[in-house]
Amino acid sequence: MMGLIFHERVGLDGRRISPFSWRIRYALAHKGVDPDVVPTRFVDVDRIRRLSGQDLVPVIQDDGQVVHDSWAIACHLEDRYPDRPSLFGGAAGRGATRLVNNWSDLALARAMRRQIYADFIWCIDPVDRAYFRRSREAALGMTLEAYSADRDQWLPAFIEMCAPLERTLITQPFLAGEAPAYADYVVFSVFQWARIGSPRDVLAGAGGMNATRDWRARMVALHGGVGDRFTLYPAGHSGPDGRET
Amino acid sequence: MMGLIFHERVGLDGRRISPFSWRIRYALAHKGVDPDVVPTRFVDVDRIRRLSGQDLVPVIQDDGQVVHDSWAIACHLEDRYPDRPSLFGGAAGRGATRLVNNWSDLALARAMRRQIYADFIWCIDPVDRAYFRRSREAALGMTLEAYSADRDQWLPAFIEMCAPLERTLITQPFLAGEAPAYADYVVFSVFQWARIGSPRDVLAGAGGMNATRDWRARMVALHGGVGDRFTLYPAGHSGPDGRET
Repeated sequence: MMGLIFHERVGLDGRRISPFSWRIRYALAHKGVDPDVVPTRFVDVDRIRRLSGQDLVPVIQDDGQVVHDSWAIACHLEDRYPDRPSLFGGAAGRGATRLVNNWSDLALARAMRRQIYADFIWCIDPVDRAYFRRSREAALGMTLEAYSADRDQWLPAFIEMCAPLERTLITQPFLAGEAPAYADYVVFSVFQWARIGSPRDVLAGAGGMNATRDWRARMVALHGGVGDRFTLYPAGHSGPDGRET
Repeated sequence: MMGLIFHERVGLDGRRISPFSWRIRYALAHKGVDPDVVPTRFVDVDRIRRLSGQDLVPVIQDDGQVVHDSWAIACHLEDRYPDRPSLFGGAAGRGATRLVNNWSDLALARAMRRQIYADFIWCIDPVDRAYFRRSREAALGMTLEAYSADRDQWLPAFIEMCAPLERTLITQPFLAGEAPAYADYVVFSVFQWARIGSPRDVLAGAGGMNATRDWRARMVALHGGVGDRFTLYPAGHSGPDGRET
């Protein structure tokens, strides 16, 4: 079998800063596929565009096939490696996992973004910071710092949004049941994004989130501790008023 | 096989007013089980308590076993009728469906409640109305009418909460994929609660919710049109300022 090539988003000093790349890193480990990783900054967009016809990572090349979009990649891995542990556990599981994926992207990640964005700029590669700031601030209609300035005020809504996770994880060790699967990787990728993208633990001090905290620790430790394989948030930066120190 | 007995919540003139009972009605149909239905009002709580040791419906009696709590009943049906069509599609599907169930109860149904509660009182059996109003108003800390008075203002947040449904249903006909399963029954039960509990269509006029509207219609039509088998909202009542006319 030819090696699988994984174009993965990286930030400052090789930090893994993308929730979309994280869920694929976990999915590859789940399938027992050890990819050739091509670290990809935002300035490397020309390579991604030539390869896939669009700008976003993750992108994989698998035996001549180029696949982009994390959900499409997960489905590709499931269908191409059917004899390896399943990411979805069958058709109905795939369907429900897609809903979890969309909830994670449209609800959870958006709420998380407000908690971390002012910090997040400092774990982006310096050559990418101007682009990141310009594009995100245009989309938000304000500076990253203004967007996250009231984050403490938004924290209760974020924790409330996590209530279905907590209720689920009180009764089963993983979101997919007794063993982790892609539903876990998707939701965890948002928490992992925050672990790497901010010095502050969004779950610290949140009452009644013990099951989610414990699950997060189990997720970090999976597949040989892959969640701790890369450098976390750079020291010396903190808070929405943080400036390079 | 002995018949399965289904203690199902009913309201005014036999209306089916409970989302929890609706998801079990669909689950039973999915499994091809035709139950003996025992219509259950709130005033019938003594029977439920003697039977199950707690107050809530649905409750089923299946070959001597008494099971309460809709999730527990769904799992019971799945495990007891393994050769019938699956409600979850395996262990990972069951896990992810539980998360969907918890999201549906903790997020979607709470947002829906605000949209319908002032109307809902009128489809409750007259003998249950005083109890319903007293218990719910105590929990809410205000009258049903006050709770729903600003519902138009809360409608955009409700629609935003449905965005993961819409994005999922644009790409697959059911939440569980190509065929309906328990994830569909759970989420649909909340929309069905609104169909029966309010004269107003919460999705009417909501831009970009076409896939969810179409899915809702498919869900109503399933299993021989079970979603339209019972009387809908009583004529002559409308709006949070509605009084018996």
